[in-house]
Order: sequence, then structure tokens, then C-alpha cells
Amino acid sequence: MGIVTLVSDWGTSDYYAAAVKGMIYKFYPEARIVDISHQIPPFDSAEAAYVLKNAYPSFPDGTVHIIGINTEESLKESHIVAYYDKQYFIGTDDGIFSLIFGGDPDSIYELDIPLESSSHTFSSRDRFAKAAAHIATGGKPEELGPKKSELIKKILFNPPINEDSLKGMVIHIDNYHNLITNINRSEFKKFISGSKFEISFRSQKYKASEIHDSYGDVRPGEIVALFTSNDLLEIAINRGKAASLLGIHKKDPILITRKVD
Amino acid sequence: MGIVTLVSDWGTSDYYAAAVKGMIYKFYPEARIVDISHQIPPFDSAEAAYVLKNAYPSFPDGTVHIIGINTEESLKESHIVAYYDKQYFIGTDDGIFSLIFGGDPDSIYELDIPLESSSHTFSSRDRFAKAAAHIATGGKPEELGPKKSELIKKILFNPPINEDSLKGMVIHIDNYHNLITNINRSEFKKFISGSKFEISFRSQKYKASEIHDSYGDVRPGEIVALFTSNDLLEIAINRGKAASLLGIHKKDPILITRKVD
Amino acid sequence: MGIVTLVSDWGTSDYYAAAVKGMIYKFYPEARIVDISHQIPPFDSAEAAYVLKNAYPSFPDGTVHIIGINTEESLKESHIVAYYDKQYFIGTDDGIFSLIFGGDPDSIYELDIPLESSSHTFSSRDRFAKAAAHIATGGKPEELGPKKSELIKKILFNPPINEDSLKGMVIHIDNYHNLITNINRSEFKKFISGSKFEISFRSQKYKASEIHDSYGDVRPGEIVALFTSNDLLEIAINRGKAASLLGIHKKDPILITRKVD
Repeated sequence: MGIVTLVSDWGTSDYYAAAVKGMIYKFYPEARIVDISHQIPPFDSAEAAYVLKNAYPSFPDGTVHIIGINTEESLKESHIVAYYDKQYFIGTDDGIFSLIFGGDPDSIYELDIPLESSSHTFSSRDRFAKAAAHIATGGKPEELGPKKSELIKKILFNPPINEDSLKGMVIHIDNYHNLITNINRSEFKKFISGSKFEISFRSQKYKASEIHDSYGDVRPGEIVALFTSNDLLEIAINRGKAASLLGIHKKDPILITRKVD
Repeated sequence: MGIVTLVSDWGTSDYYAAAVKGMIYKFYPEARIVDISHQIPPFDSAEAAYVLKNAYPSFPDGTVHIIGINTEESLKESHIVAYYDKQYFIGTDDGIFSLIFGGDPDSIYELDIPLESSSHTFSSRDRFAKAAAHIATGGKPEELGPKKSELIKKILFNPPINEDSLKGMVIHIDNYHNLITNINRSEFKKFISGSKFEISFRSQKYKASEIHDSYGDVRPGEIVALFTSNDLLEIAINRGKAASLLGIHKKDPILITRKVD
Repeated sequence: MGIVTLVSDWGTSDYYAAAVKGMIYKFYPEARIVDISHQIPPFDSAEAAYVLKNAYPSFPDGTVHIIGINTEESLKESHIVAYYDKQYFIGTDDGIFSLIFGGDPDSIYELDIPLESSSHTFSSRDRFAKAAAHIATGGKPEELGPKKSELIKKILFNPPINEDSLKGMVIHIDNYHNLITNINRSEFKKFISGSKFEISFRSQKYKASEIHDSYGDVRPGEIVALFTSNDLLEIAINRGKAASLLGIHKKDPILITRKVD
């Protein structure tokens, strides 16, 4: 009980993350605070959404997540708390929530808490920390502000499937330079439906025609395609750096084709 | 209760921060340990002071802060614990305390704790951790060593004000490349006292003549001047990187002039 | 009580560390989780061993350490928990345990816990977190799987000593660019046994002939040799960056010779 996580683009050289943590402890001395990451590239909501989307399911029910990116409120983009999949998410509704959730949240409330300081530039410290402490200590989200009916929707690019091919793209490059795509296991299976297949990337310069269970199924230095722990198709090089060695970047296309024998 | 924070130049690739945390837990298993930052540039006391000065006010009364930078003791520079603004600060008195505090601390004690190891190179682990645990568990600072009457003073460069201008400088560049200056809100207000004004920087190549409330008050890519959550004048580019785009560095001057209509 | 630490090559930009922490909290909500480091260079078991070897002795008895590097299981390299020096170590037995421990562990058990997901690529989240929570909450390691009699052994390069010289090497470069060698205090003392000596490095371009107690014993910018808090010979430049200034890299040789008067 009482876990509060933080994901942000604040970096770790500044006082920003510490100030938010201090404020959470002020309102809730028994909090367990977890840094998801503060290394999200500045203003990159999609990257923050990717990281939180894949981290939150490991957390216990009732966990409260503070999303400290693009937090400036506007008439269109309000500060909210959303309850989804038995966890709470606090942030600015610029569409990021729709990228994290697989469907509609159970409830959404706008945050009506007065800011603690005269400045508008640090909502995570001056508003979100208080809201998170409120909820993590058992307070009700409806006490934080008026109900809201809908989230702003951002659409993730879904891989288009036609008769002959499934066209995905690289949506994330991890610390090992592994390439994570937006093609999930079930879509992939449905598309190939038992046929032989070819995964090609970098304008067909590189290919893979097998899905492995683990990196070690191929020799060090060889390309391996597998499904990650979050069920997305990943292209890696066993003990190597696929992104830099193959010259592939975020948003580069990955093409799946069925092979006729 | 029982929060201990760490600020240091140890980085996060080594065992240094972990060893200090382990030692705190050894003496005080229920501690709540918070990393303020371990990314202070090596030996940069002023930067550590800036970060801690802006982080500590968010923490609850009684929090203990370990300052793990330039920790080598000498005859002139002793290990101390200072009580200021209802919080405790442990470190080496090389002047850094005077940069963090806005005035004199309520009390100062030298640390008389024997070092845990034969080495003199890791005081944070071998002395500060024990002192922090002592205080965080309710022990009295006077039990740690003899009373000291005064801190070593380092003077922060205060912006000189003359009849026509207020001359400040950039004291910090944050993760977004925003420029934080040493001009605070009240000095600024007093100087301009209702007149129109011009903020110029980079030898007057760039100017601003308005103070905004939030980054979003200007269009993306435009320069915005505002007061930060710590009440210092900040120059930023909305959704852009001011420091690198404008070619401005730490210690560069910022000039405020009053405009005659 | 109930401390679980993490050392890994996951970096801090991704969801990996957070997912493991969330999973530990799921099984053990009262856990105290400490990041040792997530900045180990990818796949570098020796570096992970160095960091953990020097961090773990500061932790209380009963601490559980998760080693999240090279975690892919194979027939030869199994997932284990080892009990050594009153602490628990969970990881993949590819030899890393032998680099951390100074001798044989008191007990070793293979982890027989079914993986939580169908993927084989995230054992730290899907197996180690559960094992760590089991032990940190007082569960017995023998309940986790069958006893194992021996670890895979990797041998650290020990500095060869002959009549005239002791040949060591740089095994680690820290955040200050200090050079940490594999020559420990007792070997050094035994070899020089009261004689004068010379420590030379970079093909004898640089020399030191004294061991100091602290960096400040020499003037800023000067080379200083001392024994670190982990009792290894270190070459540093007071307030400077030895590795980059002297052009010395990891694995470069350090030669100790006795001087005849």
C-alpha cells in the first residue's frame, strides 16, 4: 500500500525530482516512492507513455503514478487523475493517458487543488504531489475536483495489414540498442497464420525468418527476432547493439511478408 | 519521520552511493533515503549548494541531508552538522553551508565520530552515514561532537544594482537548457518599480521585455522570461533549448534596464 | 529489515528497473529497495561484480541482492541464490558470483520458480523479484529449488609478483577518473616490505614513490597514490581527472618496483 511512482523528463542533475519527493513525504511520510525514469527526452510524451505503459502492470493495485512531463495546464489540457486497471495516474491530459491505457479509464477527475506556490511552472511539486499523497493515503479521487467524462485521444500508429504484408515500425530503442517494434505477438501470429515469413528492415538489407525464444538462441553477433516481455516484436543482435550496428532509428519501418514455398 | 537525503558528485555507475545507503540502513533500518542528485559535476560545491538549496524546502521538518562532495577534512575545513530551517545538514564546512542557507544556522556541531575504516577517502560512508542515522533516529547533534560557533563563509555574487541597470548572471542551466539567473523576483520588482524594462543577454543580441506566467504564454520556439518555482528570473525557449540555441553559458551576464517611454 | 538491492545494465531510461521494483512490491509491499547501479556497461559481468563486491559489505546482514545482468539461463548457466557473508545473492551463475565472493558461499540453490510470463527475456522481473521477496520476507532459500554444490569459477587476474616487481593493472575507473588497480594493501606491503619503491604507469612516463592518506596531501593537479576505502591501490590527481589527463585506460598495467638506496 501507498506506492507513488514518478516518470518525467527532469533528468537527475537538478532538484526537480527531489522536490517532488520531499513534498510527497510532507503530506504522506510513509510513502514508498519509486522512480520509473527521469530520463525521458524533454517533452517526449510518447516515450513517457511507452515506459509507463510497460512498467505499471508490474505494480500492485492502488499504485499512484505521477506523470511529470508537459505539465503546463491550459484551457484545453487539464490536470487530471484517471483510474485505470486498478491503478491511479496523475498528469496533464494532452493525450498521454490515451497512449498509456488500452481502453477507457474507469473514472477521470480534474484536479482542483490550489497550487502551493505562485509559480505555474512546477505543477508536479505544487499540485500532483499533494494529489498523489491524498490518494495513496486512501483519499477519494472525487474529492480532488470535478468529474470529467473523456480523455483527449492520441492515436498510436497501428501497423497496417494488407493481403501480402504487415508494415510496422520501430517505436523504441532500449539501453542495449535493441529495436522494439509496434507489432504485437497476436497480430503477428494472425497475419502469418502458420506460413513461413520474412521480417525485413533497413530497405530489405537485413532479414530474419524465424522467431526465437531468447537472445542466446543465436550466436553472439547474429540478428535475432523475438517477442519481448511486453509481447512486442523485437529485433536484436545477441550481445551486440542492433540499432547502431544496423543503422536503424526510431520510426524506421519493419516489414513482415508471408513466403510462398 | 526519518528521512535522509544524499547529494553528491559520485555519479551512478559506482558503488559509492549504494555503500552510503547500506551503512545508513545498518544503523537505522527504517530510514527513508532520498537521492537528491549524484550528478553534481566533480568538486562543484556551488552547483551542489544550488540543488540542495532549492530541494530542501520541500522536505518535512527534521529531514537530514548528507552533502557528499569535497568531503576531505582538513584543519581548516571540518566535518559538521548544522541545524537550519528545522532541518539538518551534514558535510564538510568548506563554505558550502553558507551558500545553502539564507542566514546563520541555529546550531553547528563538529563531527567527532571515529571513522569506520582506516581510509580517509570515504567520509560519507564512514562518518556521515552514522551521524545521519544518529540524528534521524532522534539522537541529539550535540552528542556527535563539540559545538562550533561559525561557518566558513562563501559569498554568492549578488547582482549589482545601479541607477540604470541591474546586472545579473546565469547561475544554472537545467535539463531543458533553461537559463536560471541570480536575479530574484523581489529585487527585480524593486528595480523596475512599475516601469517598462528590457532584459538583454548575449551582448544585447537577444532581448525580452515582458515577464510571463508560464512557458506556454509564448509560441513554441519563442523566448520567454518568467520567475521559476524558486523565484529566480529564468530565460527559456518554449519547448526549445535556450542555452544551446542562444549560445549562452553558465556565468554569462544578463542585463536589466528600465525603459523610458 | 527486508532490503533488496538491484545491480544491472538496464540503464535508467527504460521501464526495466521499475518493472522489477513493482514486482518486488507486489510480493512484498514493505520491501526497502536500493539501486546499487543500473549503469553497468551492457553485458559487463566483471564491472557488475566490482561494484557489488564493494557495495555489499556496507549492507546489513540478510540483505538480498538481485544481479540483473546476463540473466539468460542455459543448461550450463543456471539461475541461483547463494548465501555468502550473511547476505543473499540472486543471479545467473555465469561465473559472476565467484568474482564477487572472496571464497565459497555457505549455500547455493537453483531457482525453480516458474517464470511469470511466456517470455524468456526478463528473468529479473519474472523470477528474481519473486525469489528476492521470498527471502526478504523470511522464506528459506531451500524452498526455491534444488541444492547446488558448486559455482562456476571465473578467475580474477591476480597481480604476478616476482623478485623485482609487482605487476598490477587498472581494473576500474571511477566517476572522478581515478584509477583503481587490482593491487591490494597487504600484497603491496608484503612486496615492498619497508623498502623505498616506485609506482610507474603509462610505460614509465608517470611515477609515484609515496603512498598518501588522502587526496589533499598533494597540491591540486598533482598525482597522488593511496589506498582506497576498499583497500586497493589507487592513482589519482588531486581535484583532477587522472584517467583522461594521463591517458590511462582500464586494463592498462601498473608496475611496482623496489628501489635500492
